[in-house]
Parts: sequence; C-alpha cells; structure tokens
Amino acid sequence: MKDLFYCVGADIGGTSIKMGLYEKGEDKDGLVCKWEISTDISDNGNRILGDISDSLNRVCADKNISYDKIAGIGIGVPGPVGPDGVVHECVNLGWKSVDVCSEFKKISKIPLVIAGNDANVSALGEMWKGGGRGFDNLIMITLGTGVGGGVIIDGKILSGSIGAAGEIGHITVNPEETRQCNCKSRGCLEQYSSATGIVNIARSIMSIPEKEDISAKTVLDMAKAGDKSADKAVDTAMKYLGMALSNVACVTDPQVFVIGGGVSAAGKFLLDRIEKYYNIYSMNTLKNKEFRIAELGNDAGFYGCIKMVIDNV
Amino acid sequence: MKDLFYCVGADIGGTSIKMGLYEKGEDKDGLVCKWEISTDISDNGNRILGDISDSLNRVCADKNISYDKIAGIGIGVPGPVGPDGVVHECVNLGWKSVDVCSEFKKISKIPLVIAGNDANVSALGEMWKGGGRGFDNLIMITLGTGVGGGVIIDGKILSGSIGAAGEIGHITVNPEETRQCNCKSRGCLEQYSSATGIVNIARSIMSIPEKEDISAKTVLDMAKAGDKSADKAVDTAMKYLGMALSNVACVTDPQVFVIGGGVSAAGKFLLDRIEKYYNIYSMNTLKNKEFRIAELGNDAGFYGCIKMVIDNV
Repeated sequence: MKDLFYCVGADIGGTSIKMGLYEKGEDKDGLVCKWEISTDISDNGNRILGDISDSLNRVCADKNISYDKIAGIGIGVPGPVGPDGVVHECVNLGWKSVDVCSEFKKISKIPLVIAGNDANVSALGEMWKGGGRGFDNLIMITLGTGVGGGVIIDGKILSGSIGAAGEIGHITVNPEETRQCNCKSRGCLEQYSSATGIVNIARSIMSIPEKEDISAKTVLDMAKAGDKSADKAVDTAMKYLGMALSNVACVTDPQVFVIGGGVSAAGKFLLDRIEKYYNIYSMNTLKNKEFRIAELGNDAGFYGCIKMVIDNV
Repeated sequence: MKDLFYCVGADIGGTSIKMGLYEKGEDKDGLVCKWEISTDISDNGNRILGDISDSLNRVCADKNISYDKIAGIGIGVPGPVGPDGVVHECVNLGWKSVDVCSEFKKISKIPLVIAGNDANVSALGEMWKGGGRGFDNLIMITLGTGVGGGVIIDGKILSGSIGAAGEIGHITVNPEETRQCNCKSRGCLEQYSSATGIVNIARSIMSIPEKEDISAKTVLDMAKAGDKSADKAVDTAMKYLGMALSNVACVTDPQVFVIGGGVSAAGKFLLDRIEKYYNIYSMNTLKNKEFRIAELGNDAGFYGCIKMVIDNV
C-alpha cells in the first residue's frame, strides 16, 4: 500500500479500552490521536466490540477520516488468544469463547482484524516505540497486580501453540511454597515479584500492623531511603525475578529485557537489583544482557496493536 | 527446484561426524545413505571441514551422484552458532572463532551451507522424522552426559540473539546448590537430570561404595525393578526436569516435549515421572502437553541438518 492509510489499536482492559489511530503514507508516519472509553462488562461483555467500533466511527467523523482508509485494527485482550484468533476465556471481560476477529469484521467492515494477548501486544509496542526500540528479540515483563510477560522473536509476537506463550509470571521460582497462586499452582514468580508480592514479602519481614494499608510503592520508597527491612523485601522479590529471567534467557536468548508496569516506576534502583541477580543465576554465555525500563505506560498495548496491523497490511 | 536434487547433513561431534545424503525430486524423497567418519581434532580441529568435504566426494563418486546436484549442506556443531553463521567456540573440536559457512563453501563449492547448534538440529530432525512428527512447536531435551535442549517454533529452529537459545540444561532449578555447574553457575538442571546428575543423586542417597562404578542405566533399571532408593534418585532427577519444562512452557507454550539421549532409553517409566511433575508445577492453561520419546538416536542431528537445507533451497 503506497497511498495514505490508517491503522487502529484497541487495548481492552477490565476497566477501560485504550485506543490509538495511526496514519501511514509516503510522507506521513505517526499517531493521529489516542483516546479511551470505559469497558462495559455488563451482559457478559457483549457490548465491548460494538463500543469500540462506535467510538472509532465518531473519531473518524471528528477527524474527517474516510472509514474506508482504515487498513486494519489490532485488538488486545486480557487472556490467551488461540492461533485461530479465538479468545477462549477473558474472566475480566465476562467473555467465554469469543471469535474477536470474525465478530469485529462483521460489526465494523474493517478488512483486517488481528487479536493479540494484552501482555504480548504491550511487548510489541515497547519494541516499536518504547524501551525496546532498536531490538527485535526481547522479553517484556509487566510488574503490576500480577506479573505479565511477552516474548518477541525477530520482531514478531511469540503466541505459542494455544496462545499461552509469555506467561512468565507463572514460572515456578519456589517449589517449596505452600500458598496457592491465582493459576492454582504454587510458588509462581507472580507471588513474589508483582506489586502484591512485594507487599506480601514486606508484611512477612517488616512489622506492619495487619490493618495498615501499604503499597509496593511505599516499600520501594522506603528501600530507596535506606530502610533495611524494606530493602530486604525488594531484594527478595528481585532475586526471584532475576532468577526467572535467567531461566527465560536459557530458552529464547533475547537481546534485552524491558521492565514495565507500576512497580517499574522505581527505575534504575529496581533494574540494578534485577540485573545483579540475573547475572548471578545465568550461565556465562548468557550474562550481561540489556535491561531497560518500559517507556509507553498504558499506551504500549495500543501501539503494539497498531504494529501488528502495519506488519500484516 | 523441481528436478532431482540432493541435500547433505553433517553432525559434528567430539569423536565422530554423522552424515546423511538425502534425495528429493518429483517422485523421490528419502535418505540415500548415512555414514560416519571420525572427528580429527588435531591442529585445533582445522581438518574437520576438509574431511567432511572429502568424505562427501567419495560417497558421491561411489553412488554415481553428480556433485553439482547437491543443493546444500547443513552442518551441526557442538557450540553456539551466531546469527551470522559464525561459531565462536567449540571446546570439543578445538575451534575458536570459525566461519563454518564461508569456509565450507570455499572448500566444497556447495552453493548453500547452513550451520546450526547440534542440540537445535537434533530437535529439528526429531520434528521432521522422529518423535515430534506431526508437530511444529516443540521442545527437545537430550539427557546424556549433560542436558541439551532445542526449541522449534513454527517448524524452525529458535537460535536466539547470540545462538544460545535452547540452553535448557542451564535453567536454575535449585538456587541453594553449592556445587558449580560446568557453565560456572550453580543449581542448573544439568546437575540433576543428566546421566551424570542421576548418578550423583543416587550416590548421595544410596550406599554405593566410592570406588564402585555405577551408570544412570543401572540406577534406572534398579528403580524399574522396585528398588526404593534408586526410585527416589530417579524421582528427584525427574522432579527437577518436570519443573524446568513447566517453566519452559510458560515461555514458548509448545505442543510437545520430545525426550532423547541415552537416559531416554528408560522410556515410558521416565516419561510418566516427567509428566507427573510437569503437571504439578504447571499453571492450569499449560497442563497436559504431549510427551514423547525421541526416535532417531544419533541420526537426529544429520536429519535436522538436511531439513534446514530443504527449508532454505
């Protein structure tokens, strides 16, 4: 396609849908606008795809963009996407089995619809426009309420045989754990290195009254300020993460690890710990990889969705 | 290419080079012959590539095959192969940095030369003609003196950014380990689940006199015959393997695991243990993958080398 065309990204989360519209032509190559709408999970999330289509229509009308110039849309969903583009379950959206691509094509008449897992499209977004710029083999880790992961090989998302590649948060890092993870297994990375995990570790080694609310940010700030117990909590969480990433490296040998999510706001303080433990647990050949902080925040997802479209137009 | 052509595989090991010649045409598609020559590691392994070329010349003359019908050769080497096809170190061959592809092209005049890591080409071979037939996303594990690994994604070898993908034997499974692995790290899978690892575990829990030689096969046979201590040793080794494979699944979500190498002769007895622990440590979504025993033995490598050529002719 040489003429000017548009690509859309829509990253569906449990509370809001982040969207972006991108133009691409001979002398144009950039984001036109981004916006968000709230996620309506009533009626088993049946309104979500229609809402995305309506919202896109309004934005196109606003911007005087002819709808038939839209080459395609990428849609990020919070659950595994099968190789056929079918989502089998998104608990947060109320979805059971939804054929996102066929359904959205029917609603919108957009010729190209590609679905991707939210953590995977974020990884692709960060590679394209964020902390992973200049690399095409990367691992992205999102440290939020849970631990999300995305694997990019040769510039493309690795989805896996049933869409479950990149589930790095469920790597077993402590086989002796007795508490169950949300995934029903025990001792998953997510139990220690997520925001929730950091708080749990802090509670177990610091004297925080049961009733007192404490956030991962507080623990990280205390650690940065020199509090020894807080430091120990962060260190434990990052030890597990460094070890897990050294194990991931044994599998895919990436160029770079990009760390995102709320916890990553702690920046270099955090990266230094992760790198330290990564190098302790890595075999010689795999030591000294690059570690970067993600740059796109909540925009990473729709950027990745747009990139999927550009790569497939 | 529609006319009859030939592809060659040469899998270089520390003591011998396994070779295969394959013909492919409209009504022909199969191995013509296989043979092996010994690996001459004198003079820093400088004679190895010449020996392969000479040997191939002799076989072609023998079989009355015109040398210019050879479309390409794949060469497996016991070390990481960079994306540029350069091998940076093969301790077992005495090689430092060797540009296998350029050098072999010069010696042989064969138009297409592709180099691959030995564990990776074995994985590809097993996918094509062995235990992984019918799958295109697989993980192969070779349980021998060490633990080798190969990752196949969409029918192709995953090499990684510096050729170190698939180093599954160096996944950390026991961060508390004090003994050093050959890779200089501690607590690697290879320290427990290789033939050497099984023997070490057996020695630590069975009363075997220091002087007495014991093989992994003996331990496995004793376990099969009902010896409780031997069973415990095998169980421990396979627990680590099952856990490591559940971690690999979180990264690439394969369809199947193919288990090869000398230890895999224990067959279903072994697979059952690996599967049991794999399912214990896996998240729900990734449970119940296929597990198969490798079928090609030492021929897997040259088959994989041939397949690399066929895919790139």
